[in-house]
Amino acid sequence: MDAVPLDDRGLTLGDGLFETILAHGGMLVAVDAHLRRMVAGCEVLGLPAPDVRQADRLCREALERAGLAGARAAVRLTLTAGSGGRGLDRPAQPRPRLFATSASAPAPVQPARLIVAGTRRNETSPASRLKTLSYLDNVLARREAAAAGADEAVMLNSRGDVACAGAANLFWRTGERLFTPALACGVLDGIVRGAILAAAPAAGLAIEEVAAPASSLEAADEIVLTNSLIGARPVSALNGIGLSPRGLAERLAGLAAGVL
Amino acid sequence: MDAVPLDDRGLTLGDGLFETILAHGGMLVAVDAHLRRMVAGCEVLGLPAPDVRQADRLCREALERAGLAGARAAVRLTLTAGSGGRGLDRPAQPRPRLFATSASAPAPVQPARLIVAGTRRNETSPASRLKTLSYLDNVLARREAAAAGADEAVMLNSRGDVACAGAANLFWRTGERLFTPALACGVLDGIVRGAILAAAPAAGLAIEEVAAPASSLEAADEIVLTNSLIGARPVSALNGIGLSPRGLAERLAGLAAGVL
Repeated sequence: MDAVPLDDRGLTLGDGLFETILAHGGMLVAVDAHLRRMVAGCEVLGLPAPDVRQADRLCREALERAGLAGARAAVRLTLTAGSGGRGLDRPAQPRPRLFATSASAPAPVQPARLIVAGTRRNETSPASRLKTLSYLDNVLARREAAAAGADEAVMLNSRGDVACAGAANLFWRTGERLFTPALACGVLDGIVRGAILAAAPAAGLAIEEVAAPASSLEAADEIVLTNSLIGARPVSALNGIGLSPRGLAERLAGLAAGVL
Repeated sequence: MDAVPLDDRGLTLGDGLFETILAHGGMLVAVDAHLRRMVAGCEVLGLPAPDVRQADRLCREALERAGLAGARAAVRLTLTAGSGGRGLDRPAQPRPRLFATSASAPAPVQPARLIVAGTRRNETSPASRLKTLSYLDNVLARREAAAAGADEAVMLNSRGDVACAGAANLFWRTGERLFTPALACGVLDGIVRGAILAAAPAAGLAIEEVAAPASSLEAADEIVLTNSLIGARPVSALNGIGLSPRGLAERLAGLAAGVL
């Protein structure tokens, strides 16, 4: 597939899901976790789940086709709700469309500068915890960041609690305590976030999943962004106020080593 | 154009806008207003505006191509942010993609049954007032309605105030007073809604634009849905409780006659 028809509901309504998978040396990192998440997302959205073996094959073919099998690359797997009639309602038997693309994805070398965006996460929507094709709010939040000379945008939810960044999860340290927003805050259920939380207890780290206002983040001593492509990236400034990374990103990356 | 490439940002991120235009007897109803709204939406999203003459031509061609030039039809005009690289950020010079499709659109004959959906409008996002390609929350709200045996879903905003329906604006009457939610509540800036509000004073009608909780709607004597395809449609039930239409839909349709 190299194009989608004009009646595709992913195109017309943002009705669908995607995964962004890190590849290096031809390996798809944590592909099982990504495919499980897409299957779980389909359940939430009421869409038939993809065949995971077909999805895996599409990802590998995308990597080969782009000539990136030996490179550090991002594979994007997209599932749309398929062709639909006019209007919001899906056909009685939706037939999802599945495709994968690939692009090179160098690791970020600089710490990230953050701002808190005015565009918030809608935690009342199940979509707020999924990687959906309706990502315009994230695009707009990132535009706010770019306009402010920053790299990434922190999105609060409708109650004013910290949720996640436009394309990353958030962790922060205040004194000796470590925090990350709870999924119920409208947080994307990140693979790296999940791996860090799963590995933390055995490493003797307590990470509190919280509903916390922006002031908590602003009072942090250290902030880290995580996602499947950047791993764990330190933050050098929030709203123009400098922060000194003290190794939290490396510690968190160590916990998530299995998915990085 | 009969397909879009896999790197189109409308497809991958819901980055774009659409209009749904009523056509009958080969006429595109209120096409100027629709095109002005799309141009204004591009300004909000930071996208280059479409050439309105080209857009108008695409709409007419879609109608002809579908063999619907003599029928009651819906023309959907879609503008995507165009092809983009990997990730959320747009290319430095986005080149939007514009296309139109058409389908028959019979007028609804029955009054609508409404429910109040759990999925809310995110009024903190500029997108909440636009017809964007990130419409999954609306799709999910309509799925809630269908699951409850209803036709359409009322969406509240994050403060719990009434905003609009999945694919329509709301008006209601309580005693002698008429209400519609203010745009700031996260309301799509509907063409029919705007025409009704513009014509109301000269017709001796006062319609109050309000931020009102769901309880206000539940206390209404009469509720009407409006959009470009249905015009003004009476409501026969809200959350399973019956309502008796008393002619408000016809009065509002009369006010909006210029765009219906």
